[in-house]
Amino acid sequence: MSNNQDSTLRLIMPQWQGGNNHAYHLGAQLLAWLAPATDGPVEEVNVPFSKDMVLENENGIVGRSLIIPQIQHSQELIEKHNPESLVVLGGDCLVDLAPFAYLSEKYGDELGVLWVDAHPDIMTSEQFEHSHASVLRALMGEGDADLTQFVKTPIKANKVMYAGVNNENEYEANFLAERGMRICRPDEIRGEITSIKKWMEEEGIKCLAIHFDLDVLSTKDFGALLFANPHAPKDAFDGIAQGELTMAEAVKVINEAAQYAPVVGLGIAEHLPWDAINLKKMMESLPLLGK
Amino acid sequence: MSNNQDSTLRLIMPQWQGGNNHAYHLGAQLLAWLAPATDGPVEEVNVPFSKDMVLENENGIVGRSLIIPQIQHSQELIEKHNPESLVVLGGDCLVDLAPFAYLSEKYGDELGVLWVDAHPDIMTSEQFEHSHASVLRALMGEGDADLTQFVKTPIKANKVMYAGVNNENEYEANFLAERGMRICRPDEIRGEITSIKKWMEEEGIKCLAIHFDLDVLSTKDFGALLFANPHAPKDAFDGIAQGELTMAEAVKVINEAAQYAPVVGLGIAEHLPWDAINLKKMMESLPLLGK
Repeated sequence: MSNNQDSTLRLIMPQWQGGNNHAYHLGAQLLAWLAPATDGPVEEVNVPFSKDMVLENENGIVGRSLIIPQIQHSQELIEKHNPESLVVLGGDCLVDLAPFAYLSEKYGDELGVLWVDAHPDIMTSEQFEHSHASVLRALMGEGDADLTQFVKTPIKANKVMYAGVNNENEYEANFLAERGMRICRPDEIRGEITSIKKWMEEEGIKCLAIHFDLDVLSTKDFGALLFANPHAPKDAFDGIAQGELTMAEAVKVINEAAQYAPVVGLGIAEHLPWDAINLKKMMESLPLLGK
Repeated sequence: MSNNQDSTLRLIMPQWQGGNNHAYHLGAQLLAWLAPATDGPVEEVNVPFSKDMVLENENGIVGRSLIIPQIQHSQELIEKHNPESLVVLGGDCLVDLAPFAYLSEKYGDELGVLWVDAHPDIMTSEQFEHSHASVLRALMGEGDADLTQFVKTPIKANKVMYAGVNNENEYEANFLAERGMRICRPDEIRGEITSIKKWMEEEGIKCLAIHFDLDVLSTKDFGALLFANPHAPKDAFDGIAQGELTMAEAVKVINEAAQYAPVVGLGIAEHLPWDAINLKKMMESLPLLGK
């Protein structure tokens, strides 16, 4: 496994259906536009999109009949390149399903997953109808069969380290406690980080897949987040955990892990650039610019 | 004069020196990326940029020796096309100097200027060393000779209508009062707008150039503004007027004017997309993405 960019597949996946929010679509495109240039292969997953599309709950999962073919396509694009490593630019959190399943199959027990997120992402459709909240559960081989079908080598609980998770609800807390899952809390990240190295040594982690949900960031530091939508009702997110890290702290915990093992996967998800979206829409209604 | 897009020159001007803030550079590029597609000509003004560039005060104006050639280049690009109308995507507010001077020369007394801004932009280098604060003064034929050299047909005070200006300082208030300049206040914009039509009728306005400084918007509605920098000290902008409009209100006042006369110029300035800038920088320091 090498960190050579030429052998790294960059996968752009503007999936929005997993969180049922159109804003993810431009979020992925803007993320790709802002990303450093690469000499390696770049692919984009087919994601149907129009402003007027309305999704239905289909047997528990909103937008199921659109989501599953998209995951299928992402899997096909990965298999076409069979890369040593990959970068995923989303899109909602579910974008990492096929990519991380591929890495788990390829690297097996040597792979550790650093899940940088405000949330554990282990819900089922019974708790939440948006499938982006169940991606890690599916990667662990549990939950909806339409999702777990993509996971040939489930990721074991001891191979996962959370970073930035806070204020879990009771369901999440029980799930994590039952499996003894590790968490590097925001408090630890703000100080000396010791739990990451310990985890990697104890569990024999030789390479890393890193899921970076931008909602691990505080809205005070970064505004392109669900919770920072300037037009959302004030109480829209009551009772839902929000990120507590600065961008510098998120980078710190990621690079802490990266110094002990090569990174073979990096997924960035949940980019919701309200200002860019609103500005784009505004320009469409101005003289000389709009139609 | 027609509103046909094919005869509209789109000028991208990532000028940052007029506000001495590197962030304008990506702001202009992102604005251009977000703008609706056009069938008309598109040009980009040469603007030297690197993250390490540090500007000096040169005889009153910061970055003078870089700024003046840029304005010169924007003038040359406009003359090359000799368009009926133009769109300017900035960059700091000074980007509208050569474009609006061109329109003033072309349309003379028939041209009205709607200046949608939190600030009157009539400072001299004695009040403020950043030349973006003096662009309208220069367009009126007053101030620094390096700026006024581009203005063959000064815009008269009665041909200007401000929209969104609030909390002027004493110097600004005196300048406006002495010349009897009109202001459509945020309060009027939030209700029934009557002063715009009255101005256009009384002053014989037959076509419009619209300067849209995004800082006319409230930071509660839009975050890609100087005053919304998440990493600025809390007291950094004490005593400086901030915008009070929502995006919808800014669009409302622009389209109110546009219904009474064709728009021949539209400049959008002061886009400072902190989240995009910080995200871009962050990705440069992440494994698999950065160098």
